[in-house]
Amino acid sequence: MPASRLDHQLRFITELDKLKSVERMISVIGGARRENSAEHSWHLAMMAPLLAEYAPAGLDLARVVIMLLVHDVVEIDAGDTFAFDAVGALDKDERERRAAARLFGLLPDDQAGELRGYWDEFEARNTPEARFAVAMDRFQGLLMNRGNGGGTWKVHAITREQVLQRMAPIRDGAPPLWDVVLQVLDEVGLGAP
Amino acid sequence: MPASRLDHQLRFITELDKLKSVERMISVIGGARRENSAEHSWHLAMMAPLLAEYAPAGLDLARVVIMLLVHDVVEIDAGDTFAFDAVGALDKDERERRAAARLFGLLPDDQAGELRGYWDEFEARNTPEARFAVAMDRFQGLLMNRGNGGGTWKVHAITREQVLQRMAPIRDGAPPLWDVVLQVLDEVGLGAP
Repeated sequence: MPASRLDHQLRFITELDKLKSVERMISVIGGARRENSAEHSWHLAMMAPLLAEYAPAGLDLARVVIMLLVHDVVEIDAGDTFAFDAVGALDKDERERRAAARLFGLLPDDQAGELRGYWDEFEARNTPEARFAVAMDRFQGLLMNRGNGGGTWKVHAITREQVLQRMAPIRDGAPPLWDVVLQVLDEVGLGAP
Repeated sequence: MPASRLDHQLRFITELDKLKSVERMISVIGGARRENSAEHSWHLAMMAPLLAEYAPAGLDLARVVIMLLVHDVVEIDAGDTFAFDAVGALDKDERERRAAARLFGLLPDDQAGELRGYWDEFEARNTPEARFAVAMDRFQGLLMNRGNGGGTWKVHAITREQVLQRMAPIRDGAPPLWDVVLQVLDEVGLGAP
């Protein structure tokens, strides 16, 4: 008997469990262990509705939330690439495209296309929704590193300029939050010289 | 200077990080460690759009997703209460109500009321959205225990009748998924006598 539509859906949903074992470089606040990509995605999806007032008006917020829930699923196969890892960045796109094909391909075609569409939109950053979603992704990293007194920036001796470049999508996707970026950099000793 | 609206929002968002350290009884598939309530909430929020076709028609799906993202936040203070813990259940409501008051109270009033509304709706199960959300919560536990060959049901010698009672909201909130419940019970050795 061929696998049913529901079988495909349940297989994908069971596969999603693996994202809970993909470790990011950033630690939970307090530093007891690294954050994983599943709980990170939950944090982002919670933040978006709470901070939507700082996005340009007219945002489709439901779209942003689903995009944030989906945006890291490819890491189940591709792993997390540290934001400041120039070598890992070289083949990140290729690794993630293969992962997207396999993972979303577990789903029935209509749902595979839909989730792939959300992921492509996040990556392309061509819509206000994607730009706000990317801003949330960066802003969460900022708040985590703030909570850890500088966190991965300190551990890996990341410079103010590198952080500003990494955080630039906030200026674009959620402009009023940019002041928080500058304030946090001051707090953790990466202020303007 | 009084804390600004944004200060309150950031304080709540930073507090949310703690949900990543609230352990549930259920383990991630493979059993390496227990699942935490933040990654559990992400898993549910991913499942809801994929399984929405099994809910009664006319569901407000965006509402379901936010409800699932929010539904366990009170556990930051109240902890997770094991589904089959009759003693813990005695004061669960009181613990969670106090937690809701403190945690949502960190937010500006309008957002505190909104999130509290989602949590109350989930708990009351008086809307189709809440009934489907609760069904997803139960169904995810089922899939996790299936992945672990019976999981917490086996470890704690939970009976078929106890599982069926725990899973009953699936029959109500997502009726076509009830067959999966019966099938999984068969698979893990808790089939009909």
